[in-house]
Amino acid sequence: MNRIELQPIGKIETPYNKAIKMPIQGRFEDGVIGCCHLFSKFEKGLAGLEKFSHAILIYQFHKSETEKIEARPFLENQTHGIFAIRSPNRPNRIGISIVKIKEIKKNKLFFTEVDMFNGSPLIDIKPFVKHFDNRENVKSGWLDKHFKNGNIPNKTIINKE
Amino acid sequence: MNRIELQPIGKIETPYNKAIKMPIQGRFEDGVIGCCHLFSKFEKGLAGLEKFSHAILIYQFHKSETEKIEARPFLENQTHGIFAIRSPNRPNRIGISIVKIKEIKKNKLFFTEVDMFNGSPLIDIKPFVKHFDNRENVKSGWLDKHFKNGNIPNKTIINKE
Repeated sequence: MNRIELQPIGKIETPYNKAIKMPIQGRFEDGVIGCCHLFSKFEKGLAGLEKFSHAILIYQFHKSETEKIEARPFLENQTHGIFAIRSPNRPNRIGISIVKIKEIKKNKLFFTEVDMFNGSPLIDIKPFVKHFDNRENVKSGWLDKHFKNGNIPNKTIINKE
Repeated sequence: MNRIELQPIGKIETPYNKAIKMPIQGRFEDGVIGCCHLFSKFEKGLAGLEKFSHAILIYQFHKSETEKIEARPFLENQTHGIFAIRSPNRPNRIGISIVKIKEIKKNKLFFTEVDMFNGSPLIDIKPFVKHFDNRENVKSGWLDKHFKNGNIPNKTIINKE
């Protein structure tokens, strides 16, 4: 099957140059601000997004250097198939993050719930639509045991040198 | 910024060779079955996903031939920035769909809530995790008026030749 070629629409600026105090998912750290800095020719594409509370960012895990087919997630030592975990070390190393929109100024979208490295190449932004994207009656496999009784596990923040 | 090169991990098989009776989002048509047919070398990557109820598919909108920066969504005649709508005619033409997992057999993942064309090149599969991906207090911009009082609008099924 043919290769797919993408051209980034901009980059994501965040305080995370290393995986220190970086959350495994944005919703576990709401106090940090990131910015989607689009190339100016894409500025008009943001029109209307300011009326949404959340957006879905699609970007490249550009710091991932290995492609695994089975791996251990951050939350436990058990190995799972790569398509059953959210590890960046995956085929095509594409990341998605649901973020909270804070402000849009020209070609910049400022957001909270930041969980990606500084400089991540931005591929797309989609509006998060509750009528499309929220799901009920969800079973989340090996993850549910870590969140039972509404608990947030300890290991939601990465802290490695 | 550098180009990004992706190599599909397989393809998505669906009954939709044309946009006839195809839903704008999978959750508006639950009776149709699709299949992620992975290349065999990725089969092990599915291990553990059978314990999840939902998955997020990332694929190419391979039938999209135009890239727009502002466009009209299917649900209304008003124009919006491309990053405020879910149109396939977007930069990098990457689609994401949340689907319901029905069964996994070797290198095939069968699912419902199908909303993509037959033959779509598959880029990634991620587990849908309710603790990461559901959001509360969501404002969905221009879309909310179409869904007020819990209504499903008429135009959720595409029907063009």
